[in-house]
Amino acid sequence: MKLYERLLEELSVRIEQGYYPVGSKMPSIRALSKERDVSISTVQEAYQRLEERGLVEVRPKSGYYVQGRSIAPTLPDVSRPAQRPLEVSHWEQVYHLLNTEKGEGHLSLGTAMPDISSPTLKLLKKSLVDAAKRADDSFINYCDIRGSEKLRRQIARLALDSGCNLHPDEIIITSGCQEALVCSLRATTNPGDVVATDSPSFYGSTQAIKALGLKALEIPTHPETGISLEALELALDQWPIKAIQVTPTCNNPLGYTMPEERRKALLRLAQQFDVPIIEDDIYGDLFYKSPRPRTIKSFDDEGRVLLCSSFSKTLAYGLRLGWVAPGQCTERVLHKKFVSTVSNPPIQQAAVAEFIAQGGYERHMRIMRAQYQQARDLMIDLVERNFPEGTRISYPGGGYLLWVELPVEVDTIKLNKALERHNISIAPGVIFSASGKYRNCMRLSFAKKPDAAVKQAIKLMAAQIQSLLSEA
Amino acid sequence: MKLYERLLEELSVRIEQGYYPVGSKMPSIRALSKERDVSISTVQEAYQRLEERGLVEVRPKSGYYVQGRSIAPTLPDVSRPAQRPLEVSHWEQVYHLLNTEKGEGHLSLGTAMPDISSPTLKLLKKSLVDAAKRADDSFINYCDIRGSEKLRRQIARLALDSGCNLHPDEIIITSGCQEALVCSLRATTNPGDVVATDSPSFYGSTQAIKALGLKALEIPTHPETGISLEALELALDQWPIKAIQVTPTCNNPLGYTMPEERRKALLRLAQQFDVPIIEDDIYGDLFYKSPRPRTIKSFDDEGRVLLCSSFSKTLAYGLRLGWVAPGQCTERVLHKKFVSTVSNPPIQQAAVAEFIAQGGYERHMRIMRAQYQQARDLMIDLVERNFPEGTRISYPGGGYLLWVELPVEVDTIKLNKALERHNISIAPGVIFSASGKYRNCMRLSFAKKPDAAVKQAIKLMAAQIQSLLSEA
Repeated sequence: MKLYERLLEELSVRIEQGYYPVGSKMPSIRALSKERDVSISTVQEAYQRLEERGLVEVRPKSGYYVQGRSIAPTLPDVSRPAQRPLEVSHWEQVYHLLNTEKGEGHLSLGTAMPDISSPTLKLLKKSLVDAAKRADDSFINYCDIRGSEKLRRQIARLALDSGCNLHPDEIIITSGCQEALVCSLRATTNPGDVVATDSPSFYGSTQAIKALGLKALEIPTHPETGISLEALELALDQWPIKAIQVTPTCNNPLGYTMPEERRKALLRLAQQFDVPIIEDDIYGDLFYKSPRPRTIKSFDDEGRVLLCSSFSKTLAYGLRLGWVAPGQCTERVLHKKFVSTVSNPPIQQAAVAEFIAQGGYERHMRIMRAQYQQARDLMIDLVERNFPEGTRISYPGGGYLLWVELPVEVDTIKLNKALERHNISIAPGVIFSASGKYRNCMRLSFAKKPDAAVKQAIKLMAAQIQSLLSEA
Repeated sequence: MKLYERLLEELSVRIEQGYYPVGSKMPSIRALSKERDVSISTVQEAYQRLEERGLVEVRPKSGYYVQGRSIAPTLPDVSRPAQRPLEVSHWEQVYHLLNTEKGEGHLSLGTAMPDISSPTLKLLKKSLVDAAKRADDSFINYCDIRGSEKLRRQIARLALDSGCNLHPDEIIITSGCQEALVCSLRATTNPGDVVATDSPSFYGSTQAIKALGLKALEIPTHPETGISLEALELALDQWPIKAIQVTPTCNNPLGYTMPEERRKALLRLAQQFDVPIIEDDIYGDLFYKSPRPRTIKSFDDEGRVLLCSSFSKTLAYGLRLGWVAPGQCTERVLHKKFVSTVSNPPIQQAAVAEFIAQGGYERHMRIMRAQYQQARDLMIDLVERNFPEGTRISYPGGGYLLWVELPVEVDTIKLNKALERHNISIAPGVIFSASGKYRNCMRLSFAKKPDAAVKQAIKLMAAQIQSLLSEA
C-alpha cells in the first residue's frame, strides 16, 4: 500500500466515524504533512482521492471540508397500499414499541426520541428548574385553554422561518403533537368518515383514526416527493374524503420532503375538493439545510390547513408540549382541546418559552441538524454494508429516522421478536399501515449517534435477517 | 347592652371571622375574665349563650371549643331536569369561566381551584424542583403510556382509604381528571349513545358528552342523597343508556355525598341493566370527616366501575395530573389515552409520587379539610345573611363549592355580566345543565378563605341580585 493510500484509508475511516464531522474543516495540507511526517504531495494526493470519493469538498482559498453524503442509496419503490378505506389495526405492536420498560441496557432503535445529550440543552434544563421554583405563578393554579401567551408568541416568531405569519391567538398549545393531531381530526371529521393519509404513515395519527371510528384511505407515496397527487385526486373523486393528513417535511417514516411545487399543488387539490389538510410538521425544524422548507400552511390564505407540531422531536419527548394552528377550525379545535385535557402544565410552557426567547432553541437546532445529518450518513453506510442484497433505504433530508425495505421474505415482526433476546428493538413496518402492508419494512432511529453498540446491533440484525431469509 | 351581651357579640364575630378557627379551644374563663377585666360570671354567661347559638361546645374537664356549623341551610329542591336525552350547549359560558385572563385583581368565585397557600405544599414545590433537576432520567426522553409506576403505586396505596384495593397496573395516569373522564366515556360509548348523568352536573363531563356526539339524559338529583335511583331506574327502562356518570362524593356542584346504601343500590341497578358507571371522585379526599366515604368502585367486584380522579382539586390545578382505574375497560381506556396525548410529563409525576411517599399528601389533606370546612360555614353565613329571601343553599360535606339557588326571577348570566364591571365572576348555573336549566343558580367557590374582599363581593352581589329582582 502506498503512503497516500494508507493516509486516504485512515482519513476515510475517521470521517466515517465522525471524528471529522460533516461541515468541519480538515487539517491543512501543511499541518497534516508535518504531523504525519509525509510529503506535501502525499497529503495532496490523499485529499484529491477523498474529494473523488465525495467525502470532502474544496472551498477555494479556504481548504478541504467534510462533505455529507451526496448520493442517495437505493430508495424504496413508490408505496402501493390498498385502494380502499380501511379500519386501522396493529395497536398491539404500537403498544409494544412504546411501552419502553424493556430493562437495563435495552437499545431501542425503533422509538423516535431526540438525542438529549447536547450541551445546548443545558439552558432548557435550567429554565425548567427556574419555572418549577416560581411556584406561585407558574406552578400551579392556572388555567389557560389556549396555553401560555408567552409561549404562543415565541412559536409565532419561529413559524416565520417556515414562511408562516401566525398571530399568537391562532395557536393552541397541546399535550404533544398527538393531541394537536387528534383534536384536528376531531374538528374536521365525524365517525365513519374517510381520511386520506400518506403511506407509510405515522402510527399515532392512524391509531387516532381508529379510535375516532374513522377509516384510513392510504395514498401511494413516493420516497422522494411524497404523497402521489395523481392517486390522491382519483381518491378524492371516488371517496367522500373529509380530511387529508400528511407529513410533507422530513416525513416519518419515509424521510422525504415534498418539493414546494407539489405542496402548492396539494393545496390546490384540497381547495378544488374543499377538504381540509392536517399538516404534521413535527420534524420540520430538523431539515438539514437552511432555510427549512415552507409549510403548506404558509401558502394557505383561507385557513384550510391545520398545522400541527411539537417540541417532542426537537427538544425532548417528555416535555409533552405541542401546538396547532387550526385556521378556520380554531374555535372547534379549542373545544376539543378543552374536552380532551383542559390545559397544559404551566412549568414546561414557561421553560420552553424562556428557552426560545433566549435563542436557545435556534442554537440547539443548528447543532442537532449537523449531528443528525452526519448520523444519517453513518447509519445508511452501516445498513448498506451489512444488510442483504435487495435492501432499499430511504434518504431523509432531515430528522433521524430511516425507513428500510428488506427482501419480501423477511417479516419484521418476527425479526423484532428475534432481536428481543438481544435486548434490541426496531419499529416493524406494519404499524405504519392501516392495511397490514410493509411487513418487510422497518423504521430505524439514528438520533443516538451510531456508536459501537449500534454497529454491533446492525450486524446482529443483519445476521437475524439472513437466518429469516434462509428459513423462507 | 349588658356586659355579657357585648362580650357575646364580640366573640360571635371573632368566631365567624375565623379568628377562632373551628375545632380550636376558646380562651379559658379565668383568662378571658382577666383580659377583659370582667367578672367570671359575665364570661360564663357569654360562653353559655355561645353554646346555645351552636358556636361553641363544652368538652368536660377541658373547656369550650369552636364548633362547626351543624344545621343545614335551606337546601335547594330536588332538581327537575328535562326527561329526555339532549345535546349539550353553553360552551361559550364555560369558555368564559375558564379563560381566566381577566385582569389584575380579578376575584373569581366561579372557578374551582384549590387554595395553594398552605405551608404543607412546600414539600411538593421542593419535589417539583428536585424532579426538574433530575434532568437525565425524569426530564425528558421518557414514554410510559400507563404513567409512572412509582406514582401508580402511591395512588393504589391512597385508594385503600376509600375501601379500594387496586393493583398499580389497574391505574392509568391522565392529564387531569378531564382526560380520565373523556377516555372513560370514549371507552364505554359510541357517538349517538345516551349517557345518564346527575343534574346539575360538572360541565367538563357534559361538554365531553357534547364533543363525543353523545346525548345527556339528566336525572333528578337530591341535594343530600344524590342522583334519584327511582328516576334512574325509569330512565334505564326507557332509554338505551350506555353509561352512568356520577360524582357521588362531595358532588360538584351540589355538594352532597351519597349515603353508602344508595351507592350500593346504584351499583345493583347498573348490574341489573348491565351498564358501566363512570365515578368521578375528584373531591373525594376533601370529605371533611374521617374516614372518607367508600367509593362505588370499592363495592364493585366485576370491574364495572371506571373510577376517575385527580390531584387538581386537592393539590394544585396546574399539575394536570389525574388517573383512572377503568376495571374491565382498562385495555380500551389505554388505547384512548395513547391516542389522546400518548403520555404525561415525567416531572409532575415524579414530584407528586415523592410528595405522597413522604406523607405530604395526607398531612396537606388534614389541614385543608379543616380549612375548607370552616370556610364553608363562613360562606353559608355570608350568603344567608346577604342574599334575598327565597335563596336556597347547598350544605357540602366536603370540598369548597357552594350551590346557590336564587329566586327564579334572577338570571345568573345577567348577574355575571353585571359583576364583570366590578372585576368579580361566578359560575352561572346553566353550564351545569344540558337542558338550559338552573338559570337562577350559581356555583361559588370558598377555597379562598372568605376574607374582607370576598365579603365585599358577596354584598355587592346581593345588591346586584336585588336590582335584577326589581327589574323583573
